[in-house]
Amino acid sequence: MHARSIAVVLCGCGRADGSEIHESVSLLIHLDRHGFNYRCFAPDLLQPEVVDHLHNKVVHEQRNMLVEAARIARGEIAPLAQLDPHKFDAITFPGGNGLAKNLCTFARHGADCTVNADVARLIRAFHDARKPIGLICIAPVLAAKVLGTAAGGPGCTITLGPGGEAASAAARMGAQTVAKGVTEAFTDQTQKIVTTPAYMCETGPAGVFAGVGAMVDELARLL
Amino acid sequence: MHARSIAVVLCGCGRADGSEIHESVSLLIHLDRHGFNYRCFAPDLLQPEVVDHLHNKVVHEQRNMLVEAARIARGEIAPLAQLDPHKFDAITFPGGNGLAKNLCTFARHGADCTVNADVARLIRAFHDARKPIGLICIAPVLAAKVLGTAAGGPGCTITLGPGGEAASAAARMGAQTVAKGVTEAFTDQTQKIVTTPAYMCETGPAGVFAGVGAMVDELARLL
Repeated sequence: MHARSIAVVLCGCGRADGSEIHESVSLLIHLDRHGFNYRCFAPDLLQPEVVDHLHNKVVHEQRNMLVEAARIARGEIAPLAQLDPHKFDAITFPGGNGLAKNLCTFARHGADCTVNADVARLIRAFHDARKPIGLICIAPVLAAKVLGTAAGGPGCTITLGPGGEAASAAARMGAQTVAKGVTEAFTDQTQKIVTTPAYMCETGPAGVFAGVGAMVDELARLL
Repeated sequence: MHARSIAVVLCGCGRADGSEIHESVSLLIHLDRHGFNYRCFAPDLLQPEVVDHLHNKVVHEQRNMLVEAARIARGEIAPLAQLDPHKFDAITFPGGNGLAKNLCTFARHGADCTVNADVARLIRAFHDARKPIGLICIAPVLAAKVLGTAAGGPGCTITLGPGGEAASAAARMGAQTVAKGVTEAFTDQTQKIVTTPAYMCETGPAGVFAGVGAMVDELARLL
């Protein structure tokens, strides 16, 4: 059997204005550990904001999601618009609050958010093709929005950690949530969506690494 | 026994102009896995350059090592000048070509490089106190320069991967090198220096993660 190819969607480099770094690197390590061919992508767009992660404040700078995500991907990355779903067996999204600003407007608009057009196209394409979708931390809101019953979709069941505000918003978008701990992953077998809460929980990097590992193990079982 | 405290020295966020991200995150995961209290530090200094990691070219921007490293550390980081060696049981350095520009001038001057004054002070302090020093990828050149016989030090034995130019420079600084594969760590038992080659080898993130894990296991044994 040929090695499976997995797309990884990044959106910058840093939890507050891009992809959460520990989650992204944990994902790459586990994909590599399974012998998957992974390929990173990010929107070739300016970030809506740049956050100084030391002082936790927005600064007046411009950074491009693809250029910054290339730091995590060590230069091996392509524009998200070029992601051809026919060439990949699964798609994965690390989280971070930046995702809720860069790939959708969830951080600002909650259940009324919009989703980046390429992201929405790709989630629908992988879902329609019955190919697994893996989402970490806050990223499951993308599936809730695109596939939720409120958008006329089939609905899906995801974890966003212990619950709380994000879970309420997911319910309004027409997705079910289940509470899971940081080392766990949850699989919606019908929709082939695998989620793990990562930094939605109070945890350190070893917990995140374990949970992302559980998610990738589940993806491997589905493939 | 109280949990051991380990200092992690970063210098930005990205292999070409800061700390290599996969190596840094692998280190944090393994330190957390061992139950160590880790604390990140970085120089509160402008990077000598900013590199666009997508196009691999220097760009006209200014970024601060501490502010950028806070992306990896999720905001939990302090200026390197505040690192008190009495409060830590070991010190560790992820690599990246950025380290060879930011924490020393090895990328430009090779064996004739200078080392950031805080970095030199700390390597001497941990070494004098017989506390372990862990260095990843290209970072072992810091120990070679500060503790090498060419600087009047005791010398040390390190790995820089398969060998090559960096190993020749280490020899000129008065350090011995041994060839090691990516999943291995090498311990200089006399000097209590543990090194692993990481991206000095042709490898992926799973290999780096394994080698950094071997290094942290060795540090744990020395503590």
